[in-house]
Amino acid sequence: MSKLLTALETAEWLKERDSFLLITHRRPDGDTLGSAGALTQALREYGKTVYVLFNKEITPRYSKYIDDCIAPDDFIPDNVITVDIASVDLFPDNAKSYANNISLCIDHHGSNTMFASNTCLNQERASCGEVIYDILTEILDYTISPVVAERLYVALSTDTGCFMFGNTTSNTLRVASLLVDAGAPIKTLNKELFRTKARSCIKLEGLLNTGLEFYFDGKVAISSITKAMIETTKATEDDMDNIAALPGAVEGVYIGITIREMTSPEDCKISVRASAPYDANEICSKFGGGGHKTAAGATVQKTVSKIKEDLLKVLEDMF
Amino acid sequence: MSKLLTALETAEWLKERDSFLLITHRRPDGDTLGSAGALTQALREYGKTVYVLFNKEITPRYSKYIDDCIAPDDFIPDNVITVDIASVDLFPDNAKSYANNISLCIDHHGSNTMFASNTCLNQERASCGEVIYDILTEILDYTISPVVAERLYVALSTDTGCFMFGNTTSNTLRVASLLVDAGAPIKTLNKELFRTKARSCIKLEGLLNTGLEFYFDGKVAISSITKAMIETTKATEDDMDNIAALPGAVEGVYIGITIREMTSPEDCKISVRASAPYDANEICSKFGGGGHKTAAGATVQKTVSKIKEDLLKVLEDMF
Repeated sequence: MSKLLTALETAEWLKERDSFLLITHRRPDGDTLGSAGALTQALREYGKTVYVLFNKEITPRYSKYIDDCIAPDDFIPDNVITVDIASVDLFPDNAKSYANNISLCIDHHGSNTMFASNTCLNQERASCGEVIYDILTEILDYTISPVVAERLYVALSTDTGCFMFGNTTSNTLRVASLLVDAGAPIKTLNKELFRTKARSCIKLEGLLNTGLEFYFDGKVAISSITKAMIETTKATEDDMDNIAALPGAVEGVYIGITIREMTSPEDCKISVRASAPYDANEICSKFGGGGHKTAAGATVQKTVSKIKEDLLKVLEDMF
Repeated sequence: MSKLLTALETAEWLKERDSFLLITHRRPDGDTLGSAGALTQALREYGKTVYVLFNKEITPRYSKYIDDCIAPDDFIPDNVITVDIASVDLFPDNAKSYANNISLCIDHHGSNTMFASNTCLNQERASCGEVIYDILTEILDYTISPVVAERLYVALSTDTGCFMFGNTTSNTLRVASLLVDAGAPIKTLNKELFRTKARSCIKLEGLLNTGLEFYFDGKVAISSITKAMIETTKATEDDMDNIAALPGAVEGVYIGITIREMTSPEDCKISVRASAPYDANEICSKFGGGGHKTAAGATVQKTVSKIKEDLLKVLEDMF
């Protein structure tokens, strides 16, 4: 049984303890890394000993917000905290040994499995960064510093696509405004995170846009990414951050599907984005995957063309 | 001589008068139309008679925020107000006759020429919509309604590229947050304005990204748009809203240039976006145009390839 803590109770909990290790999730994004980097920095400013467990999947885009936080190999913490992690399945391999021993989970996913002794969960928040903000502003005598503001801005803005995605709320915008006042360098951050694309990314997106296929009166768009395309364009994981959103962004499209070849031609990842009345989770569950109504995924051991065939059969029943 | 009014003085000025005609600028964008639509609606809710002068360049994207505001042909106003207009050069043709007779100018451009009897100017604001918000919140007994909130959100968000451009401030985010609380349907608006692209737009962007040319060690990127490309892709003016920003968004690019064929092969528009230390205005002034350091433009009576040649000569001197 996990005990649910409010932001205020979490602030008290943190104040009363010391020696923390923070865990970020697999395939770490700006929210888990920005949140961990911000909480580490803030608690250090408050006099605590805090580190983040090394995550081998950290990409260059976000490393600067977390590099100074990484735990030395011999660090033995008194308390282990997860940030932006809904279940232990999302732990990186090197964090698995802590799975039964998480003191505090800070999260914003409604699907949280309550795996920690204490859980500070607010599913009204668009990003875990906003939950961290709620906690930090409950700690007396602590004022958000420019470094913390920058990292929290990274968390908020990347999880909402620069305030563009459907999860953005008035709270997201309010907190973002306060973070800018606290010193988050919004011009530089927006330019780096949202207004700069690598040439490789531009090339890959050009290929994908040219190759988009439409079905069922334009209601379905399918984009296929082969390993050859990734090799030709030299696209990196950072370049592909937002690629699953492309087919669904075309006017009139209700179901946007991306099929990506992973390690071999018979190892593919499907990403589905859907708008009502269609259900991405329903589609992916037919392929052994799952997720939310608006976004879901699956891993399938078939070729791109075979998957497309199977998908069209499944979709035919829905249209 | 124009008299400068604060937001409070402007609110008083509006309360004391009635019968207003609002003028929007040439090639109207979300800021001028959203601001005009919001001010019209708010003053009507306050009991005033208000209309917006018809602007023949209104595109389908924004028409729904302004359609119910358009003045009948026989409307004779007591007061003419401009919104988001820096100089009379930017008046649509059918507004030229009012040029010497503007009672109030509401604007946020530092380059404002003070053409009106009274001017409410705040160049700290990213959008004219924020200036309108400042004024409306100074009017006693007026609470922003959902319709006004929606239109102001259109103004703020489009002028800042959904809070992504360098002009976004903590005030923009703060006001956006309050507008969402006041009923601006952020999910629907963001989806329509920023997350939906017409197939024609996707196709044109694909072509442009494929055809991008890089010079001077990748510091300069040039994109050429011919009439043939526009015809093949069936791209509309709405599709090309943001096209000038594309070449400048590539990593490592300091100067992004778009050359677009307009009415004939020898009638082109150049758009330049530059980051420090380079100056877009300096480049465009060599072609009889001008603008700001970060964004400028020019109209040139030469072919795309001749302009490219001339541009490269100008740039060679700078590098």
